[in-house]
This record gives sequence, C-alpha cells and structure tokens, in this order.
Amino acid sequence: MDKIRVGLCGLGTVGTGVVKVLADHQARIRHKLGCDIEIVKVLVNDINKPRDIIINKDWLTVDAAELVSNEDIDVIVEVMGGIEGTNKLLEEALRNRKHIVTANKDLMAVYGQKLLKLAKENHCDILYDASIAGGIPIVRTLVDGLASDHIEKVMGIVNGTTNYIMTKMTDEGLDFDSVLGEAQALGFAEADPSSDVDGLDAARKMALLANLAFKMELNLDDVKVKGIRQVSQDDINFAKSLGYTIKLIGIASMHNYKAEVTVEPTLLPMDHPLALVKNEFNAVYVHGEAVGETMFYGPGAGSLPTATAVVSDLMEVVRNIRLGISGNAYIDPQFKRQLKANHEKFSRHFIRLDVDDQAGAFQEITNVFTEQKVSFAKILQLPGQIEGRAEIVMITHSISQEQLLNSLQALGQLAVVERLISHYRVDGEE
Amino acid sequence: MDKIRVGLCGLGTVGTGVVKVLADHQARIRHKLGCDIEIVKVLVNDINKPRDIIINKDWLTVDAAELVSNEDIDVIVEVMGGIEGTNKLLEEALRNRKHIVTANKDLMAVYGQKLLKLAKENHCDILYDASIAGGIPIVRTLVDGLASDHIEKVMGIVNGTTNYIMTKMTDEGLDFDSVLGEAQALGFAEADPSSDVDGLDAARKMALLANLAFKMELNLDDVKVKGIRQVSQDDINFAKSLGYTIKLIGIASMHNYKAEVTVEPTLLPMDHPLALVKNEFNAVYVHGEAVGETMFYGPGAGSLPTATAVVSDLMEVVRNIRLGISGNAYIDPQFKRQLKANHEKFSRHFIRLDVDDQAGAFQEITNVFTEQKVSFAKILQLPGQIEGRAEIVMITHSISQEQLLNSLQALGQLAVVERLISHYRVDGEE
Repeated sequence: MDKIRVGLCGLGTVGTGVVKVLADHQARIRHKLGCDIEIVKVLVNDINKPRDIIINKDWLTVDAAELVSNEDIDVIVEVMGGIEGTNKLLEEALRNRKHIVTANKDLMAVYGQKLLKLAKENHCDILYDASIAGGIPIVRTLVDGLASDHIEKVMGIVNGTTNYIMTKMTDEGLDFDSVLGEAQALGFAEADPSSDVDGLDAARKMALLANLAFKMELNLDDVKVKGIRQVSQDDINFAKSLGYTIKLIGIASMHNYKAEVTVEPTLLPMDHPLALVKNEFNAVYVHGEAVGETMFYGPGAGSLPTATAVVSDLMEVVRNIRLGISGNAYIDPQFKRQLKANHEKFSRHFIRLDVDDQAGAFQEITNVFTEQKVSFAKILQLPGQIEGRAEIVMITHSISQEQLLNSLQALGQLAVVERLISHYRVDGEE
Repeated sequence: MDKIRVGLCGLGTVGTGVVKVLADHQARIRHKLGCDIEIVKVLVNDINKPRDIIINKDWLTVDAAELVSNEDIDVIVEVMGGIEGTNKLLEEALRNRKHIVTANKDLMAVYGQKLLKLAKENHCDILYDASIAGGIPIVRTLVDGLASDHIEKVMGIVNGTTNYIMTKMTDEGLDFDSVLGEAQALGFAEADPSSDVDGLDAARKMALLANLAFKMELNLDDVKVKGIRQVSQDDINFAKSLGYTIKLIGIASMHNYKAEVTVEPTLLPMDHPLALVKNEFNAVYVHGEAVGETMFYGPGAGSLPTATAVVSDLMEVVRNIRLGISGNAYIDPQFKRQLKANHEKFSRHFIRLDVDDQAGAFQEITNVFTEQKVSFAKILQLPGQIEGRAEIVMITHSISQEQLLNSLQALGQLAVVERLISHYRVDGEE
C-alpha cells in the first residue's frame, strides 16, 4: 500500500486548513508513515464558489452518497459540522469500511458511542481528538504517551468561553452579565451561551477524558455539573483574599476502581499550574501513579489548531491501518462502571454564610461542623452587607461529600443562619 | 511477527520499573501495537544479588557481548548508565541490527550524533526521549503531534536542579550558595553541580529540542549559555518589583530559517505559564505557526517517570519495526544549519547599573541608549548601596543583540557608570 486516499467532507476554514497542512508536509508524512496521504474527493455545497486556495476542480463533488461509497477512498475526514445528516453519512461510510476522522464535537456528543460501536464492528477507526481541545494532544497523550501508567486524576480547563469569562471577572472586576455580553460581541461566546456557561460542553469533554484515563465507560449523566452563572464578584474577592482563584474546572478522579467526575466552579491556589491559564486557553492536568504530575496547555479551538489536530488524527488512522490494528482505537473499557458514593468523595470546600451578628451565633455554627467532624483550614468573619448581619467564609479541610451535605442541611435549620450564600469545591492542594 | 524480544541492560530502579511497567500493561501494549513485547535477557553485575522484584533467573546474564549479539533479541533497552563502555556496547548492538532505547543523557550528549548515524546506516532506531525530560513526552510531541506544524519557538525549563535553586532563592529569599548546599544535601544537586548550575545540561537538551523543532542540525556549540551563579537576591527583588520572576530558561527560536538557541537566566512576566513551574519540575512551551501556544509540564526526572518514558519509546520502536520505517526516527535535518547574526537576534533586556549620583549622569546614560535607538518600557532609579552612588534598573523594548552590545560597550566608557551590575534577557511578553 503506497498511499492512503482521503475523502474530505467540508471545505470551510478547517477543511481548507487540512488541505494546506497536508500539502505542506508531504515529505514529513511519508517519512513518519512509510506511505503518502492523498486527497481524492472533496464534498462541497457549490462547486463553482470562489475559494481562498487553489484546488483541483476534479476533486470537488456535491454527491455525498457517492463519496462515502467510493471504492477509491480509504478514510473520510469530516469537517463540515451538522448532526443528523452528518451522522447518517458517517454511518454509511463505516458500513462501507471507511475510517473516519472528525472534528465535530456536537455530533460526537450525541452519536459518539453509537458511531464508535459501529466503527468497531466494521474494524474501522473513528478518531476525534480535534473535537476535544483543538491544540492540545490530550487524547493521544492519555491513550499512547501514558499508556504505561495508571492515571489517578485528570483536572482541566476544557471550555474556552467560561475561562475567558472567569478571567475577565477576576482580573477586571466585571460582573458575569457584562463579560458575557462582551464575549458574545467578540465571538468568544454564542448567542445562546448555555451549553458553555452551564458547564455542559465541559462535562461532555470530561466524560470522554475520564473514559480514556480510567478505561471505564462513563457518560454525561455520570458527571456532576454546575455552571458559572452564580459566581459573584464577592465570591471571587473572598477567594482572592484567602489566596485562591475561581475557575470552571473539570475533575475526574479514580480510587479503588471507583470514579467521580465533576464540572464546577472551583477554588485553586493561586500558585497552582492551572491558575495561570487565562482567557480562552485550555489546559489539562494529569496525575499518574508512575509519572506524577503533568500538564498540557494550549488553545482550546481555532481553525488552524483544529486542522493540525485533524491531520495528526489522520496520520494515526493511517498508522493503525498499516499496523493492522484498526478498530482498536480509544474506547476500550477495561473496568466496570463504578461511581464513588458520597461518603467516598473527598475534597476541601469553600462555604460562605450570611448569619445574624449576635452573641453565640458563631458558636452554634461551629457546633454543627464539629458534630459532622468537619474542621477548617481558614475562617474569615466580616460585617455583613445588611445591618445586624455578618458573613462567615470558611475553607474546610478535606471532607466527604456526605459530611458536606449533612453540615449544609444542619446549618439550614439554625435560626442564626439567614442564608447559605455560596459554596464551592477547593482543589489543587495536597 | 507476533512478539518483539527485548534485551534489558541494567536492573537498577529504572530497569526494575521497566520490567514492572511491561508486566502490568501486557494487554494494553498488544492492543496498541498488534504484537507482544517480551524481555528475554537482562544484563546485571551479579546474578545472585537479592532483588525487589520476582524475575525469571534464566533471563539474567553477566555476558554483555553475548547479549548484544544474541539472535533472539530485537531491541536493546539500556538503563545502566556509563559512557565509554556503554557506547562500545551499543555500537556493537547497532552493527548487529538491534534497535536501541536509552535513558542515558550523558552518553547521548557525548556520542549521540555518532550513534544516531550508525543507527541510520543499519536501518535501526535509537530512541532517547527518557533522557530529555523524564515525564514530559516532549520529543514525541515535537516529532509526531505537531508534525504538521511549523514551530517558531521552543522555550523551556529543562533542568530541575537550577529550577529548584531559583525557586528557593525567589520564594524564601535565600542566597545561591546556601540553596545549593541544601539541594546537595537533599540529593537534588550533585556534589559537582557545574553541569547543572552553569547551564550545560540545559544547553544539551535545548540543542536537541531545537534540532527536532526546526529540523536543523544544531549542536552544543551553537547554544549561547549562561548559568545562574551570578544571579543575586537584589536582581531577583528588582525583577519582582517590576513584575517579573527570574528563571533559567532555554529558548530556541527560528526566523527566516535562521536559528538562535540560548540558555540563560531570563526574566518572565509573573503571569507567564512558565512562571509557576516550581521546584524540580520541568516545562516546555512551544509556539507553532498553526497551533499557537502549547505547553507541557511534568517531572524532570525520577525512576518511575523515566521507566514510563522508556516503555513509551520501546512501543514506538516496535511500531516503527512493524511499519517498516525503522531508522527514520528523529534526526532528519531538512534545513541547512544557519544561525542568526547579532543584528537579527531580538529580545527585551533587563539592565542594572551602578552609577555616580550626580547631576547629568542620568542624561549621559540615556544619551548612549538614544544613540543606539534603544527605548525603554520601565526605568527605576534608586539610591545605591554606597554613599554617592545610585542604581538604575531598566527594561528595554525589543532590541537586537547588536544594539545591546553596542550600548553596554558605550556605557562602559562613561565616567559616571561605575559598573554594569547585571543584565538579563526578558522574554514571554508580546
């Protein structure tokens, strides 16, 4: 086999990037793979549309059905987006024994598991690194580089929009709504921002990364998700005065073959490597049994990083074809899906209370925590924003989710506690 | 070919780790490679020595010559250290068409180019990721993950000892000698620390990373090296008050196919991703044309990270054997070695002067810079430590090395300038 033939679906900015990257690196690709990669067909909407690149007109086609059944094509590269129609097309391609590379995050979120299963049945690869965190080779690293390591924890900033918003809120003191408006104007946030700001996009990615890291089949429903809409300037400032910064962090951890996956606003110490990941950048921090702490940092998206990631995936597909291991890629759960119970989930917490400023109030509150065997690393009491009230801000030592929930419930029954203003996970400390 | 047979040279902590990692991940390795990896011989000094792992006694041998000529062995994994004898052994192994994986940094520094050449002649791979930055898959990332990208700049903390020393000096206000003594007592620094603190170890690694990143054959002599012995508490504090932290940073950059590689104490803005890389950790920051900024962070060394990296290399060797591309690995210069001239090397600089505190002195000094068309981002003048003297600390805008050297020379000729106390590169800002 001296060349692998590609059918490219979509010739927008990413598709154009893929054509360019392949053309620019022919020699290097042959050197690393022992064969060539050649585009033979490109699916477009309009053959005669003027384009930014010089492209062989004979490649262009509007016939999707022909492309996915074309016997001259080995691999389909899908960079056109869309869900329902695209899914049907890729299913057909897999049935025709074509391998697939896709950068389509929305498609993979909805039909990922089905497509992966169909791919396996047909001994085909479907690779989708480019859909996770554009410029970060995190999927490949979890699968290959650390293949020889047990991973205990994956912690990451995997959504650029929310990290941009949290950065602006923290560095410029702006509130959520105005930063969101600005991000929308700049094109960093969508008109309907809920998938980002409510944490769903991050949760999808964390479910996938947890699958790979722990070799366990976890899905979106297994992820506890809390978005950033409720994070206030006061929360950010209290965190700052205690030495922390608040970010939307995804955390997947495994202990005794039981997993926990969360996406929530989390306090990190200001000198944690993730604390300096600003604006739309992404980063994933991996803690492995053998290798210790490693972190990967890069752009979360962008057409050129995505095109580069697509070509890296394509090279991996070709390598697998030549090694005869197509269909082995990625999802290969080895452990039964088991989730931690609340008494097995440990972390520190930031708790902020609105209380009556009266003698004995503090005592009543600490009694509740003492009963639950919760102790504190830091406590701050300040005058409240309302006359006769006080605010108490606490950072606990490591406690179970059960201890947390019991404490919060008991606090809610105290007359002196007017309101639980906010509480967040605290992570990144030993 | 259903298995690849390995001869392991050395059964210390790394060697033991390699045996353990291979045993623990058999299924996964087969899945990813389509074949097994099996150890068939282990070279040791003493067959009867008690060991921490259960190992098949039939594997053990003291006969090095037999091991490297053994027809049942495909790959030699060298984790025993040593230079002269080890080099001879590996040369013999390559002549016998055995592939090599080594974690031996000292050997590669001295005989690397010769061994790589001999490997290529014999269509064999010699892989040495584990010798660069134990837990960071940086070599693989430069070679594979970003294969499809033009890399413009690689910037890294690639020596754990000096980063440990700089961290302690910065965070605890200790001077160089006392931190070095402490590091030696803890085993983080060697009795003769010069290879680390004078920057040579980092320079070797940067030369290698520059080779890979720019596909250009650069060697140690092409790296401008300055160690950390001269960095004082005052320098650190002045940098801090201007918003910077000082670290020993390796920088490789390429522009118009001309390269520059340096290792020197460098000021970074405190919010640069490398600024939070503390203690013995390493990190490499890569700027690619397509992918933008990416960073990889991890432990610089340690027996388990190293064993993991060795096994990753071994998997790559096996993959290459099966792809029929052995001997293509890594060093494959595509561009003629061309170095930037001084007028093509641009960066910002920190300059600290001891001057006479007299009317007109400041004017004379700024005149020198104006003549060289050097302008400043920040200037700080303070009373000097000696009566009648002042200190001037400046951060320039981006200037050429030529402008810098001409300015420093002209300053040296001014009567009002008593001494150039220190000057450092400033990087990591746009």
